[in-house]
Amino acid sequence: MSKNVAIIGIGQTKFGELWDYSLRDLMAEAGTNALKDAGVEKNEIDYLSVGNMSAGRFVGQEHVGALAADVLGIKAPAIRCEAACASGSVAFRSALHAVQSGNCETAMVLGVEKMTDVHGAGALTSLAAAGDQEWEASIGLTFAGLYALMARRHMHEYGTTQEQLAMVSVVNHENGKNNPYAQFRNSISVEDVLKSSMVADPLRLLDCSPITDGAAAVIITSEKNAKKTQNPVWVLGSAQSSDTLALHDRKSFTELLATKQAVKDVFVKTGLTQKSIDLIEVHDCFSINQIMAMEDLGFCKKGMGGKFVESGGIKLNGEIPTNTLGGLKASGHPVGATGVRQLCDLTKQLRGTAPNQVKNAKKALNLNIGGSGATAVINILGVEPNAS
Amino acid sequence: MSKNVAIIGIGQTKFGELWDYSLRDLMAEAGTNALKDAGVEKNEIDYLSVGNMSAGRFVGQEHVGALAADVLGIKAPAIRCEAACASGSVAFRSALHAVQSGNCETAMVLGVEKMTDVHGAGALTSLAAAGDQEWEASIGLTFAGLYALMARRHMHEYGTTQEQLAMVSVVNHENGKNNPYAQFRNSISVEDVLKSSMVADPLRLLDCSPITDGAAAVIITSEKNAKKTQNPVWVLGSAQSSDTLALHDRKSFTELLATKQAVKDVFVKTGLTQKSIDLIEVHDCFSINQIMAMEDLGFCKKGMGGKFVESGGIKLNGEIPTNTLGGLKASGHPVGATGVRQLCDLTKQLRGTAPNQVKNAKKALNLNIGGSGATAVINILGVEPNAS
Repeated sequence: MSKNVAIIGIGQTKFGELWDYSLRDLMAEAGTNALKDAGVEKNEIDYLSVGNMSAGRFVGQEHVGALAADVLGIKAPAIRCEAACASGSVAFRSALHAVQSGNCETAMVLGVEKMTDVHGAGALTSLAAAGDQEWEASIGLTFAGLYALMARRHMHEYGTTQEQLAMVSVVNHENGKNNPYAQFRNSISVEDVLKSSMVADPLRLLDCSPITDGAAAVIITSEKNAKKTQNPVWVLGSAQSSDTLALHDRKSFTELLATKQAVKDVFVKTGLTQKSIDLIEVHDCFSINQIMAMEDLGFCKKGMGGKFVESGGIKLNGEIPTNTLGGLKASGHPVGATGVRQLCDLTKQLRGTAPNQVKNAKKALNLNIGGSGATAVINILGVEPNAS
Repeated sequence: MSKNVAIIGIGQTKFGELWDYSLRDLMAEAGTNALKDAGVEKNEIDYLSVGNMSAGRFVGQEHVGALAADVLGIKAPAIRCEAACASGSVAFRSALHAVQSGNCETAMVLGVEKMTDVHGAGALTSLAAAGDQEWEASIGLTFAGLYALMARRHMHEYGTTQEQLAMVSVVNHENGKNNPYAQFRNSISVEDVLKSSMVADPLRLLDCSPITDGAAAVIITSEKNAKKTQNPVWVLGSAQSSDTLALHDRKSFTELLATKQAVKDVFVKTGLTQKSIDLIEVHDCFSINQIMAMEDLGFCKKGMGGKFVESGGIKLNGEIPTNTLGGLKASGHPVGATGVRQLCDLTKQLRGTAPNQVKNAKKALNLNIGGSGATAVINILGVEPNAS
């Protein structure tokens, strides 16, 4: 059993098109908010892990671990971790390992992406670098295109409908309305989604998460320190798995094997099952991905994701409240920040202080996907630590 | 005391302008060589950490942890770690923490950079992203320019000469001659350096490490597994520190505070001193950096680095054999690979199988710098583990 570690502070910026924020402004605000929330001084941070996919291409800046340390006045070891849209989650795991190894006590995980000031290549070209450059991006396959291939096949194999896809975005927008940090806080209807412009058939504009600037941070610490704090949220388990980078090498287009492996691993490690979980955050970069996530995580049967969504299973009052503060679609998707933002949102729920509070939330799970599924990270958080 | 971990396998590609190698070719060759050297099967690798600075800008590919896993047929968690030219070292530390945390047993660390197929921006522009984009790179300050400022100030404060700077490259080229993996295997003279074209006054072409394609890998494992192998090389200690990203925020241009902090930390952790160390690898991206490294690491007094080099202190038969297989200058500097290549070279020495073998080498240290010194990583390796 790995050592217990807890989240003792969270912070984020508003997510959106933040024209007056630079990369360093985003880092400064989210990091400072997390320090304040944790009641921790910057000199108590002895490990800093930054999740960032592509500041090099977006704003011409690599070495963003050191930049974050500089901006926040932290002298501790700083590292940038990247796994495309799961960058925030691999940064979290890097910090988790550092604390569990005994090499440090208290770590900050800072996820950030400044996407609207595009330096050099366009945002979609930069994002395509999360797929296989030689086999996919170089021939013009965008991420909407990749997920459109999965959506079309899912519709073909399981009869999933465009209305069911649309319903994912409708629910996420409904949940985002009460989230002051969300990029979009407006209700949308299935008709709105179906009337929105086509991006990559069958995915329309409102099936797609937006281009977003934003940062989110969590502070984690060892069990000894966490027990001295008011509302620690415990990391009950974490798992990560990998799949082929290119879609064409996979046996199926309608499931993500990395997700299936990671969820199996995390449940074996923790001894928990789907029934133990009170709410979840999943990776709805495109509506089809949330439908596959519900299936791959085992919250409904394979192929039944569309019907599960249609029946209200993902709603706040449904079988498993999902993306309760808006998910990627409504909160926004600053890629390096998303995995950390998911942990912030789950922490709010487990503290009992979320805008759309799920009653008696004791255990929660997040799924963060990198690229078209080559990386999947799953964490389970809870209000009580694992037995030592 | 952290748990003991050992290096049980090393592998690399030749370093150079490898026009017939892609990013994935480099990964495949170095990773496969390391697996073979360790006698480990790919399915025994349960953590894969990739050090890479800027594949996004060099070849249009992010998500390179997953790509490496894909290329090598590894399904384990894969992560890319970045800290500019210290990317290989932060990848190593990420893997070290993962093993020491008990979450995995055997990890591969793969450093890689494909620099000669530049996608979009030029190589120097891409490298400048390791400095401060807003305050340095955006106004045209290159890395040669940054280190030239340090060199000029070191000459002013301490009387360091261009001949002393040149001697660094002369020794590194001499050491590289017997290294079959080195980019340059020719002798050069002080006169050659002084006659080479000026890059950024006072740094000339032969004061500068080259643009290089290459990959290097090490396989590390827990004490339990390592003790079953033939020639484990033990990680006695590891430390990392951060400094401001921009040079203008530092009190001094003639020392790297991150190096001074990291070396202090690693000696406190291990209870060792400079006298315990038989040979070292330092970060000679520019000749001035090796002179500062000798001083900041405490192998000579502050300001005496030039004289120390002139007196032969860094030679194979000198006080502290340094960069015994050519360093960055002669081996080449594929930025994400360099920190891992240093560990490979020290492992060869500690196994007693290096081309320029240092007699009775028992303990060795490496220093890998990110950017202009915002990141410094130091590891100490040895032939015997720390007492448990």
